[in-house]
Amino acid sequence: MYDFAADIADCARAIETALERQLVPGRLSGPGPAADRLVNAMRHGSLDGGKRLRPLLVRQAAAIFNVPSHQALMAGMAVEMVHCYSLIHDDLPAMDNDDLRRGRPTVHKAFDDATAILAGDALLTHAFGLLADPETHADAAVRIRLVAELVAGSGAGGMAGGQMRDIEGEKGGFSGDEISTMQAMKTGALIRASVRLGAILGGADARALSVLTAYAEAAGRAFQLADDILDVTATAEAMGKATGKDAALGKQTLVAQLGLDGARERLKQTVNEALGCLRTFGPKADGLRATARYFASRES
Amino acid sequence: MYDFAADIADCARAIETALERQLVPGRLSGPGPAADRLVNAMRHGSLDGGKRLRPLLVRQAAAIFNVPSHQALMAGMAVEMVHCYSLIHDDLPAMDNDDLRRGRPTVHKAFDDATAILAGDALLTHAFGLLADPETHADAAVRIRLVAELVAGSGAGGMAGGQMRDIEGEKGGFSGDEISTMQAMKTGALIRASVRLGAILGGADARALSVLTAYAEAAGRAFQLADDILDVTATAEAMGKATGKDAALGKQTLVAQLGLDGARERLKQTVNEALGCLRTFGPKADGLRATARYFASRES
Repeated sequence: MYDFAADIADCARAIETALERQLVPGRLSGPGPAADRLVNAMRHGSLDGGKRLRPLLVRQAAAIFNVPSHQALMAGMAVEMVHCYSLIHDDLPAMDNDDLRRGRPTVHKAFDDATAILAGDALLTHAFGLLADPETHADAAVRIRLVAELVAGSGAGGMAGGQMRDIEGEKGGFSGDEISTMQAMKTGALIRASVRLGAILGGADARALSVLTAYAEAAGRAFQLADDILDVTATAEAMGKATGKDAALGKQTLVAQLGLDGARERLKQTVNEALGCLRTFGPKADGLRATARYFASRES
Repeated sequence: MYDFAADIADCARAIETALERQLVPGRLSGPGPAADRLVNAMRHGSLDGGKRLRPLLVRQAAAIFNVPSHQALMAGMAVEMVHCYSLIHDDLPAMDNDDLRRGRPTVHKAFDDATAILAGDALLTHAFGLLADPETHADAAVRIRLVAELVAGSGAGGMAGGQMRDIEGEKGGFSGDEISTMQAMKTGALIRASVRLGAILGGADARALSVLTAYAEAAGRAFQLADDILDVTATAEAMGKATGKDAALGKQTLVAQLGLDGARERLKQTVNEALGCLRTFGPKADGLRATARYFASRES
């Protein structure tokens, strides 16, 4: 019987330990205090943090194909490093200007802006190093597909492009379609990449990869919808960061377009859509099912 | 008979055309003005720029092994994108705060800081996408080695780590060894990676890779020495950017340690060291020979 609470806790623990072992001052960047500073900033921006939902998706997709857990962990770390780099850069004064993240000072607050920029750059770079590592998969052809997948999820056509659209969208005037495109790129692309990394590690055939991609795209929309709803309903205390901020900035979200009830209804439909994609997989996809439901439950 | 002037001009032209074809607004990042903005910033930070010395090194190392020119061009573009991303981020107000680069406004001046951060991030990411592309090499095992090589050259253990050391070094107190380590990482690591990318594309054996690596390390030191000498001797007009800046910032360079004459002597020795590594390769290494000499000639 699948246990989501155990799965998410175990994944977070495994990622924490694995990141801790990767980001060792004095090894990653050579000896001396200047080198320590960079690695310590990378650690600050990636350890002790978050629910590790993207590595969870890698591992749950990989579980369908009985991928060895250390392989899913390597790919999960890579996607988590990309996620953490994006948070470090997004928090900068030049971007969202956030002082707090999960109740702790953001990297540029704990260090400085220059160090935060470099720590983000170095985490992004290291992510590709993990995927290139033979420990991630013995077959170079698989590893290079993982690299291409993470590029697609995080670059100009994915997360970075979505972040640019988000900034431009704050100036107002985005249509519902433009908001959806922005969100699909900013948040959705990396969620999509996470699921696909797990499937590629597992040698998924074209048909399995296609339905898992459809699952991931629906799950990504559900995640973003829940986030937008939370931004309206949650208190700052519960979130550990400033809320109502999107509305204050005049960001156009689907909640603004559909209303709160409409957005909740859309969220339910979207989760059902995600679950529908998993029909052929049986109990091995229970992890992915639970995560899609979890994405929706976050908004309450 | 090898013609350096023709080689460097042809390489720069080929890189310019290839980058131009990669960075297409409306394709790379989807349709719409927000997407165009990111790609236009990536173009501003990478087109019309510089001598393309790193792609030249890729191509000259590749020439020893008769690598098809389009393969060297793909890898050269990747390393140039990494170089350009690093310039975009280094120019930011939080880092070197430069308004001009090659006589033109820097990316954050022409756009804004947020766009410059994202454009750098997206160029770095796209570089790995190029190396993962089958056009770069048919064999995935070769492509994944290129990825690992570029990670080593550009990440915490290479360029990004060197930049962190450089910022810390401005606070003073670096020894000669610490300056050398900083420069080997900040500038040397990507030059080293460039030569090795070309050699790996060519299927170099362990011995050839090892002497080419030694060549690249010496060439990188020569490049940095010439740069430090130039910073002291050149006028702002000739450089198209602010000069004497390192001294003004109290940066400790080897010129400060050795004096101008001592630094010039060291530069000569270093170029000879680089040339000595190429003895076994015959006329096919004339490109690499010419570039090492060119690095030294830059200081006059």
